[in-house]
Amino acid sequence: MNPSYIRKTLESLQRGKINLDEAINKLKSLPYEDIGFAKLDHHRQLRRGFAEAIFCPGKSLEQIKEISKKIISRGSPFLATKANETIFKAIHAIDSSAIYYPEARMIVVQKTKPLLKGHIVILSAGTADIPIAQEAAVTSLVYGSKVTTIFDVGVSGIHRLFSHQHILAAARVIIVVAGMEGALASVVAGLVSKPVIGVPTSIGYGANFGGIAALLTMLNSCAGGVAVVNIDNGYSAGCIAHLINIEEENAD
Amino acid sequence: MNPSYIRKTLESLQRGKINLDEAINKLKSLPYEDIGFAKLDHHRQLRRGFAEAIFCPGKSLEQIKEISKKIISRGSPFLATKANETIFKAIHAIDSSAIYYPEARMIVVQKTKPLLKGHIVILSAGTADIPIAQEAAVTSLVYGSKVTTIFDVGVSGIHRLFSHQHILAAARVIIVVAGMEGALASVVAGLVSKPVIGVPTSIGYGANFGGIAALLTMLNSCAGGVAVVNIDNGYSAGCIAHLINIEEENAD
Amino acid sequence: MNPSYIRKTLESLQRGKINLDEAINKLKSLPYEDIGFAKLDHHRQLRRGFAEAIFCPGKSLEQIKEISKKIISRGSPFLATKANETIFKAIHAIDSSAIYYPEARMIVVQKTKPLLKGHIVILSAGTADIPIAQEAAVTSLVYGSKVTTIFDVGVSGIHRLFSHQHILAAARVIIVVAGMEGALASVVAGLVSKPVIGVPTSIGYGANFGGIAALLTMLNSCAGGVAVVNIDNGYSAGCIAHLINIEEENAD
Amino acid sequence: MNPSYIRKTLESLQRGKINLDEAINKLKSLPYEDIGFAKLDHHRQLRRGFAEAIFCPGKSLEQIKEISKKIISRGSPFLATKANETIFKAIHAIDSSAIYYPEARMIVVQKTKPLLKGHIVILSAGTADIPIAQEAAVTSLVYGSKVTTIFDVGVSGIHRLFSHQHILAAARVIIVVAGMEGALASVVAGLVSKPVIGVPTSIGYGANFGGIAALLTMLNSCAGGVAVVNIDNGYSAGCIAHLINIEEENAD
Amino acid sequence: MNPSYIRKTLESLQRGKINLDEAINKLKSLPYEDIGFAKLDHHRQLRRGFAEAIFCPGKSLEQIKEISKKIISRGSPFLATKANETIFKAIHAIDSSAIYYPEARMIVVQKTKPLLKGHIVILSAGTADIPIAQEAAVTSLVYGSKVTTIFDVGVSGIHRLFSHQHILAAARVIIVVAGMEGALASVVAGLVSKPVIGVPTSIGYGANFGGIAALLTMLNSCAGGVAVVNIDNGYSAGCIAHLINIEEENAD
Amino acid sequence: MNPSYIRKTLESLQRGKINLDEAINKLKSLPYEDIGFAKLDHHRQLRRGFAEAIFCPGKSLEQIKEISKKIISRGSPFLATKANETIFKAIHAIDSSAIYYPEARMIVVQKTKPLLKGHIVILSAGTADIPIAQEAAVTSLVYGSKVTTIFDVGVSGIHRLFSHQHILAAARVIIVVAGMEGALASVVAGLVSKPVIGVPTSIGYGANFGGIAALLTMLNSCAGGVAVVNIDNGYSAGCIAHLINIEEENAD
Amino acid sequence: MNPSYIRKTLESLQRGKINLDEAINKLKSLPYEDIGFAKLDHHRQLRRGFAEAIFCPGKSLEQIKEISKKIISRGSPFLATKANETIFKAIHAIDSSAIYYPEARMIVVQKTKPLLKGHIVILSAGTADIPIAQEAAVTSLVYGSKVTTIFDVGVSGIHRLFSHQHILAAARVIIVVAGMEGALASVVAGLVSKPVIGVPTSIGYGANFGGIAALLTMLNSCAGGVAVVNIDNGYSAGCIAHLINIEEENAD
Amino acid sequence: MNPSYIRKTLESLQRGKINLDEAINKLKSLPYEDIGFAKLDHHRQLRRGFAEAIFCPGKSLEQIKEISKKIISRGSPFLATKANETIFKAIHAIDSSAIYYPEARMIVVQKTKPLLKGHIVILSAGTADIPIAQEAAVTSLVYGSKVTTIFDVGVSGIHRLFSHQHILAAARVIIVVAGMEGALASVVAGLVSKPVIGVPTSIGYGANFGGIAALLTMLNSCAGGVAVVNIDNGYSAGCIAHLINIEEENAD
Repeated sequence: MNPSYIRKTLESLQRGKINLDEAINKLKSLPYEDIGFAKLDHHRQLRRGFAEAIFCPGKSLEQIKEISKKIISRGSPFLATKANETIFKAIHAIDSSAIYYPEARMIVVQKTKPLLKGHIVILSAGTADIPIAQEAAVTSLVYGSKVTTIFDVGVSGIHRLFSHQHILAAARVIIVVAGMEGALASVVAGLVSKPVIGVPTSIGYGANFGGIAALLTMLNSCAGGVAVVNIDNGYSAGCIAHLINIEEENAD
Repeated sequence: MNPSYIRKTLESLQRGKINLDEAINKLKSLPYEDIGFAKLDHHRQLRRGFAEAIFCPGKSLEQIKEISKKIISRGSPFLATKANETIFKAIHAIDSSAIYYPEARMIVVQKTKPLLKGHIVILSAGTADIPIAQEAAVTSLVYGSKVTTIFDVGVSGIHRLFSHQHILAAARVIIVVAGMEGALASVVAGLVSKPVIGVPTSIGYGANFGGIAALLTMLNSCAGGVAVVNIDNGYSAGCIAHLINIEEENAD
Repeated sequence: MNPSYIRKTLESLQRGKINLDEAINKLKSLPYEDIGFAKLDHHRQLRRGFAEAIFCPGKSLEQIKEISKKIISRGSPFLATKANETIFKAIHAIDSSAIYYPEARMIVVQKTKPLLKGHIVILSAGTADIPIAQEAAVTSLVYGSKVTTIFDVGVSGIHRLFSHQHILAAARVIIVVAGMEGALASVVAGLVSKPVIGVPTSIGYGANFGGIAALLTMLNSCAGGVAVVNIDNGYSAGCIAHLINIEEENAD
Repeated sequence: MNPSYIRKTLESLQRGKINLDEAINKLKSLPYEDIGFAKLDHHRQLRRGFAEAIFCPGKSLEQIKEISKKIISRGSPFLATKANETIFKAIHAIDSSAIYYPEARMIVVQKTKPLLKGHIVILSAGTADIPIAQEAAVTSLVYGSKVTTIFDVGVSGIHRLFSHQHILAAARVIIVVAGMEGALASVVAGLVSKPVIGVPTSIGYGANFGGIAALLTMLNSCAGGVAVVNIDNGYSAGCIAHLINIEEENAD
Repeated sequence: MNPSYIRKTLESLQRGKINLDEAINKLKSLPYEDIGFAKLDHHRQLRRGFAEAIFCPGKSLEQIKEISKKIISRGSPFLATKANETIFKAIHAIDSSAIYYPEARMIVVQKTKPLLKGHIVILSAGTADIPIAQEAAVTSLVYGSKVTTIFDVGVSGIHRLFSHQHILAAARVIIVVAGMEGALASVVAGLVSKPVIGVPTSIGYGANFGGIAALLTMLNSCAGGVAVVNIDNGYSAGCIAHLINIEEENAD
Repeated sequence: MNPSYIRKTLESLQRGKINLDEAINKLKSLPYEDIGFAKLDHHRQLRRGFAEAIFCPGKSLEQIKEISKKIISRGSPFLATKANETIFKAIHAIDSSAIYYPEARMIVVQKTKPLLKGHIVILSAGTADIPIAQEAAVTSLVYGSKVTTIFDVGVSGIHRLFSHQHILAAARVIIVVAGMEGALASVVAGLVSKPVIGVPTSIGYGANFGGIAALLTMLNSCAGGVAVVNIDNGYSAGCIAHLINIEEENAD
Repeated sequence: MNPSYIRKTLESLQRGKINLDEAINKLKSLPYEDIGFAKLDHHRQLRRGFAEAIFCPGKSLEQIKEISKKIISRGSPFLATKANETIFKAIHAIDSSAIYYPEARMIVVQKTKPLLKGHIVILSAGTADIPIAQEAAVTSLVYGSKVTTIFDVGVSGIHRLFSHQHILAAARVIIVVAGMEGALASVVAGLVSKPVIGVPTSIGYGANFGGIAALLTMLNSCAGGVAVVNIDNGYSAGCIAHLINIEEENAD
Repeated sequence: MNPSYIRKTLESLQRGKINLDEAINKLKSLPYEDIGFAKLDHHRQLRRGFAEAIFCPGKSLEQIKEISKKIISRGSPFLATKANETIFKAIHAIDSSAIYYPEARMIVVQKTKPLLKGHIVILSAGTADIPIAQEAAVTSLVYGSKVTTIFDVGVSGIHRLFSHQHILAAARVIIVVAGMEGALASVVAGLVSKPVIGVPTSIGYGANFGGIAALLTMLNSCAGGVAVVNIDNGYSAGCIAHLINIEEENAD
């Protein structure tokens, strides 16, 4: 808990601006809103630098609608991941400015477009990895990062990557999205002095084991400077890349 | 291959400053030095922003000595990871300014200390996780990042973490080192708007499976913004954290 | 086999109240009823403190109906887990007092409501974990425990948990239901001096491996005092929490 | 954070008994002691009902000694797990009342023996499982529970278990320690209406996979009412069993 | 290759009863029939003591029909495993004496019923394990073994098993079919001096991992004398149990 | 990058045949064609000896059509793997000479049939393994290798294999396709002095784990000279077998 | 519990030969002897057809000596598995007739040699698999089975097996011991109409995973009639093979 | 069995050159020599194109000596893999021309050096992978292939590989030895039209899992034309590369 927040509260108590019970209440927890089956964390945008996203699988349509209404009504940017057409229709009925990115399987409601800052480069190894790359791209864009995407530059024809080296050189952080054997992340990290975020995808079959092969490849990268998010988790890659990208603005 | 490097070489050829064979030689590859069993990548410091490190396990003492001599003679900062006392003695015989960090199991030879920039905060969950945290800290420091370490703030007594929140708030990037169930990374990522690099350690037993439990925990973090390096790989965490930390200086 | 039961039987034999074959029969086994494809364990309620539950998957509708008729006709409370609408209709046709909890996927027939005793607190980390938390809650309630549920208090916004600490303090046992990285169980166990039963759920994707990530997290909890049931097994968590909760009434 | 603790502190502030800075200090965190590489959680005994234990592997002897001195000097009961002869000698030099249980691999310093309450029964399947059973027993005893141990009652000769059924009936909670296939936990849970805590051990070989076989067996118990701790983690089993055992004394 | 078969063939050659090419042909291989996509092993019944069975998954309906016609026309008993209603209709059109066992998912065509010999006892732990138990039972019966089945005698109410001990005592070999934690095999093997064949089933969920839990339990049985077949492979259990059961008739 | 290609380009620059920018462009990368979501590697046929194949899963129909048009319009032989009827119709609409192999799940467009060279023998263990064997066969044939297939020669009736030994003896390379336990590869490698390429298939169930059993069997072959491709990857087996088969023609 | 045993006891009670307490005592459990840390199951030889064996790992030398003394003093045949020279010396001091089989790592004390019956054939694939094959052989011999061993007949030179087919034909049951890929079990089961017990060994490296490769191979045998024991568990294979071998003598 | 061999034998029989028993003997099996614990396959060199190698782990020194004497006395080239200094001394005592390659851990006895044919190129990614690369090199050389080795060309500095492309172009087959993430095999296969044999090594730590990461990477190579041998199995890679390399000489 932030000492200055405590100080301010205690001074209000000392000065009689608030009474004892009000002070206890303020100190007992940070603010959130309780809607029964979900506790919305409106404080997150301040605390974490980006809005709360809804991970759709496992939630009922009713729950998604209820949560969405609350978030949208607060004016925060709204993101839903691993969504589908049905969920989009429900969100669209709540706010007609909602946009659906079917390839990325994301829904976005964003009243004010942020000024795009910095530069994130997102590479994908194969055509089938594009949806996850798009998920990362939409996430970073919504949160306010400038994004360049380069698709289909996997290591089976590595010269395709080399002709884009000047773009890599201009990035503040690079996201590498790759399934099958996932070797692209190591090769990129060996080429440039940039933080590389690897996103293994579940593309492949057999001993790919739903993305484990690519995950292990990236974790064992012989080139230092690669960190990895969960299989198919373009959203999380977009979050951390955005945080890295905007860090200089925020730093003390 | 860098276009400006090509341009400069070709102009030299056009202007007759170099002949055809010299041009071919320059273009055929980036510079490295071949010592038979190893090809030293002296170009790496320019290309990647940090010097070549030696991962000691699996290399003979003779090989380590041979590689070390070459690197040290070039004046690059020198790092050896997962080293031991015997290897240190051999390096120390080559250059008496070599320093050994026994807890971190690292050897460093660095003629000029870099000016420390930015701010990396490194947290460890338990006392037994400290060696890996130290490995990350030494790495970041040698490459030129300012580092603060906070040890023993695991979730079994989570109030120990909360009293350090102001330090977390001042970081550009946070490294979380944790074994056993590795829950600390999620909790930290839920508290701050900073990139979090998780380092699972092999501390624990039974269904810990040598660090897999902590690895999976961190990969599945419910709080977006965590990326993970290999189990016990403090070095790689130090590299990527350093790259994130200094990015603002380098950005276009 | 219970010595007093043996003694009573043998005395009856000595006194001639029963003959040799009757005695053998009584001693050969504890009572159960054989309906061919299932052996109903009517003795279980006495022996185990709770009624027999039907685990629906893998059983044909005919088998479920047959088993249900027998149990309901005995007047025992009846529970079916991982059930669906079709099964509910079949049970409802047998006994119209049957209740279906669609979220928990449970069917209950209970003629006499038990007096609720003690206090079990059930926490769930995310909205998608609620069905398994409900399964645990229904189980505990049917068997006679008082239950409080608190949903959506996962570690990505850990302050949501802290404002409920007084409820945790009032519990005799706490069930923590969490998917993804499952870190909530460790955090709770670090806060209170209560037995904590962890229920990992299969919510998540990629390296979650259908709940293994959360399972390993809970098994490796750095805070002592957590024990774990099978992935998605809210029923079993409800059983053991109820047994813990009512233990003081039963103890010698 | 405990509301009554906050209230008391705030009232002191209102009444001028303490000044603003003192109040901030008290509220900023729960008390712990920082010795650099470890943050001792002296508050734990109040918060969790049992003292802090040291898990020895991965800690240097120097660290163990430093931590031990601090804990012992506070007068809290002291426990070290997975210890060895060397560690014991070091602790014994600090406090000559230290006792070493070589089979359980535990060291205990306890100035005042607690009054033993309730009743925990600890079963082990094979002779080789005894050390882990002893670890659970010592833990429960030190914390203040009455313990009965029954060794070598595995399912390969199941009649050995049945002759002890009256002891099982008198327990408030049962710990079952078993390696190899770990079937004993299911059989015990099928016999009695008591909470059963399963401790899989790494005893066995081949497809036992260091205890995974027994772990999975216990997690999949067909008899409801079994919860499981980590492989070979007798300490954690002792903690949760103690919490269950003493719950009635503590309950609201 | 059988020496007496070679001798007879060579004598025929020496005596001029067959010519060189005939002899080569006889010696080059044992008889089978090639139908392009399958090589029917008509010799198997002699060599292996039971007829060739068709494992249906992965084969097209056309292939199954073609293979079935050939086998049935030879008069061998015919078995198809993991079959369905559609496949049954196709076989029935070929031979109207075909019988379908929907629970066991087997199709049988058998012109002459064999005299049933010996005694195999098949136990199943839960109601949901019955289909695999039936698959084993049908297999053994078709090949000529006498079979007794006892269903629903799992360890959660172990007294149900004990009342059948006299039947176990009369068996030559016992098949134990169990899912979930699969503990029944160990308990049975601890009770009787009979070969026990364990069949783990995929019944269960979560950390059952589709039958791995039960498989490992049976492989690690603390009671010697248990051997295990593949998960859900009732057919293979029926084969080996039949071979054990009839061995005495065949032995030299 | 090929030195002679560099020399030719630089000489053109020296002689003024091309200007500086043209030279840079030629040197910066090898030729490929960018269609946005895919970068077609037309250079591959020269570089790798076989045309680019489309792996269909994970690509949208629109993407497949777009890629196919480009490849077919270049006159290269065209291959699509793991295809279906719908994809075939789309390709057929682009080029009516397209052929669909439903069992192998492949689509081929090939204007000029190559002269078939060398000799690849492809064995499959069971009838259900044939589709993967066909995938390997179609691949090798399209690229220009002579192929002989022998189906259903698994080790459960090993004499079926032995009667084909003269065909094995005539092969330059042998592909062994086998599911279940995959033992055929070891047996074949023990019989002949030929390179053996193993293709494990996902045929089987239970502890087959979708082909892992066969994969491990082949990797652990006690007979040297077996190398393995991914589970169900007939295409890759066809590629490497073709490369081995034609090597003598290509060798310097 | 055996009905005839109950009948006899009850008749004694009815006839006044024993009093009530004596009857209760007799009925309460089968006889075993309690030596504190172990409960010796002297009844096992009657119940299971073979004596109790000591699995040495995890037991202290003191425990092994204590258990051994009791068993040897009863005159039962005594077996210790996975033993070493030190343990042997301790047993030899108790009974000088003890024999140590260093390759099989077994210790045997057997006063009266049993008449060897039936015929078990034990095959091993490689020279390194011999110790486990010897463990199975010693076990079967001590319990009274006739045993023939054939070593080094693995599938890398499969003709070595074929020349022993007449010995296989004379067996009542065949044990196949194989590491690496473990293909031998399938090949043997495809050749003969005998029950085959597979023993995977941990011989091999890399993707052998300590015997898992061979274990999976044997479980997935395409030839019906193979059942498998744990990795390296020659003892258990010897037990079940003996039970199968002597079954005809015992059958009703 | 080879038809021409049968024909020749039968003609001898017809012509009276051999008698019936001699013919039976010749036909019953292919020749091997039985030394009790091992059956030497002297026929292998003819059948398989290379001599029998001894895999040392798991064999006693006595067994290795016995086997070696027999092989060496036959004049076949002799290879022992995964050997050590002690074994070498024993072999050297048998034949003083024995050579030990300590890095490759191989012992070779070869009286006549073969004429080296063709061209195998062996690449290793890191310095620590060299021993396995050497094992492959020695194997290929002994069997008669010309070998070029290029060490330390891993993807963390990929330009080191590109400067050797002309050597790759001259190979008939390429072996790629790589640990950590093993990405080198994919990159090489994407560059050249040569069969690539991947050898994953166990170099690395954490989520490398003793080489599984590299193994999966290679199996999932997005570039067709890679086949893989077991982790650390340089010997098997040398065998299959040699077979591929010499195939043209042998082909019909």
